[in-house]
Amino acid sequence: MKTPRPTQSVRLVVVGSIGLDTIATPHSRRGRVLGGSVTHACAAASFFSKTGMVGVVGADFPAPFLNLYRRLGIDTRGLQRIAGKTFRWSGIYEADMNNRRTLKTELNALAQFDPVLPAAYRRAPFLFLANMQPALQMRVLDQMRAPRFVAADTMDLWIRTARTELESVLKRVDLVTLNDSEARELTGSHNLIRAARQVMAMGPRYVALKKGEHGAMLFSRTGISLLPAFPVEQVVDPTGAGDTFAGGFMGALARAGKTDVASIRQALVFGSVMASFCVGAFGPDAVAALKQAGIRSRVKCFRKMLAIEEGRP
Amino acid sequence: MKTPRPTQSVRLVVVGSIGLDTIATPHSRRGRVLGGSVTHACAAASFFSKTGMVGVVGADFPAPFLNLYRRLGIDTRGLQRIAGKTFRWSGIYEADMNNRRTLKTELNALAQFDPVLPAAYRRAPFLFLANMQPALQMRVLDQMRAPRFVAADTMDLWIRTARTELESVLKRVDLVTLNDSEARELTGSHNLIRAARQVMAMGPRYVALKKGEHGAMLFSRTGISLLPAFPVEQVVDPTGAGDTFAGGFMGALARAGKTDVASIRQALVFGSVMASFCVGAFGPDAVAALKQAGIRSRVKCFRKMLAIEEGRP
Repeated sequence: MKTPRPTQSVRLVVVGSIGLDTIATPHSRRGRVLGGSVTHACAAASFFSKTGMVGVVGADFPAPFLNLYRRLGIDTRGLQRIAGKTFRWSGIYEADMNNRRTLKTELNALAQFDPVLPAAYRRAPFLFLANMQPALQMRVLDQMRAPRFVAADTMDLWIRTARTELESVLKRVDLVTLNDSEARELTGSHNLIRAARQVMAMGPRYVALKKGEHGAMLFSRTGISLLPAFPVEQVVDPTGAGDTFAGGFMGALARAGKTDVASIRQALVFGSVMASFCVGAFGPDAVAALKQAGIRSRVKCFRKMLAIEEGRP
Repeated sequence: MKTPRPTQSVRLVVVGSIGLDTIATPHSRRGRVLGGSVTHACAAASFFSKTGMVGVVGADFPAPFLNLYRRLGIDTRGLQRIAGKTFRWSGIYEADMNNRRTLKTELNALAQFDPVLPAAYRRAPFLFLANMQPALQMRVLDQMRAPRFVAADTMDLWIRTARTELESVLKRVDLVTLNDSEARELTGSHNLIRAARQVMAMGPRYVALKKGEHGAMLFSRTGISLLPAFPVEQVVDPTGAGDTFAGGFMGALARAGKTDVASIRQALVFGSVMASFCVGAFGPDAVAALKQAGIRSRVKCFRKMLAIEEGRP
């Protein structure tokens, strides 16, 4: 496992938001934190595959953040810089760190986001459509040349306000990531197994159900895979953990170059491990500071925690 | 894997409550359901090891329930029958089936419970002290002749009202089962890894953290094992799932006859599988109706869901 070289061609394209976050946790508060789905997903993916980002920032976007993307080897040719301010999000976490409340959202540059893919991205075999309006996800899909595997994320807002467009997107993706409440809202089924089955009937071959600190479940036509989360002793900031999970997963899958269920399971382990690093600091700092050896070591440790040797009582 | 014969000597002793439950779920309501920790734990354990029960019922305890214990091959020599009524519990589940509220508790016979062990139980190598007053758990421990492995369960009430006695029990058990909130209440640590470490410092070599539909975590001095729950499509009644988990686990461990961490992990898989059956019907009905082949088949299916083949992207 080696870090991709800067000159490699783009294997994975990630499209979504880039923002400056203001985050309050029970323990501290931080402003102007580098955030957005693209930031977290690309930072995680960059350790596995050459990743190209598509997003938009305003003129106020700090140069050190741009440099961070480049230092991680992320292809930034799809990063648009326009006049005005960068997207801002502000939120506060409850005592248990599991629930958060959005205090303020200023779309700014994101309101004008038109995801145009650089020519060099269009033949990439893997695509992650992070959470954004389904119409924009569709616009991205229309620009790609037969990607081998597409994953998409979404949110309750689009399930409620752009359902038809979301259903069109679902018809064209291989995997969708949802959390419990999104799966329930999308299908009307409280039971997650039934909900996942209904989502698969809408198009995707796979449903990755994200349960935060309780891990994830992968549903496919042939079965279910269960993946607990890597347990973390010190959660500093959970923001971006879901996108880090998705980015680590897609990066690892793109690296493997296979899309069968066994490869997907393995890639999910990497997604979990990357997410467990993400929550250890504000923004993408903990992920950005990683070395390959640190990832390998935690994956090894995680596999031990998951191992149940064969045998009957 | 064969069902234990009735004549075998007792390998596992289970001590706790036996009751008649009234259970309301969002879908239905049922009265006079056979319940109590001993019922659920023994029913699950009976498929793996010769299990002896210690509990008390009143004169109103229905004969068919006694017959059920015997049909399952449970040794009932430790079952006391006294004048008056059997313990009653009544509870209602919320829409998500994860949270429940106790409506009424009538201790009845349970108020006079003095857990006296039949001579034939005292040399049993495995002991499960289900949830009851720590002073009673201690009384049981005092009657046992050097058991090889003791697991204990408890509840928030004893953590609050009988902490000193509970601490004495913890010094003498190998494994304690706790749910998230009990672990937090016992230690004052919100983080579960830290909480488990503090519990181990109180005595037990192992802490099994029960997370209901999210599975379990096993903490030992050397590491952590993660075990998701077997996903269930139709949850009819979650009452007793935790005791079924513990009983299945202890039964499987007693059958294996080993107490190393690898054997404990494997036994936990059986506990999970038994719990997944338990929630499929009211009381112990779904577990009692099982055949060995049904258990084997679900264990096999569960192992597939947990399997993550080796390999790096």
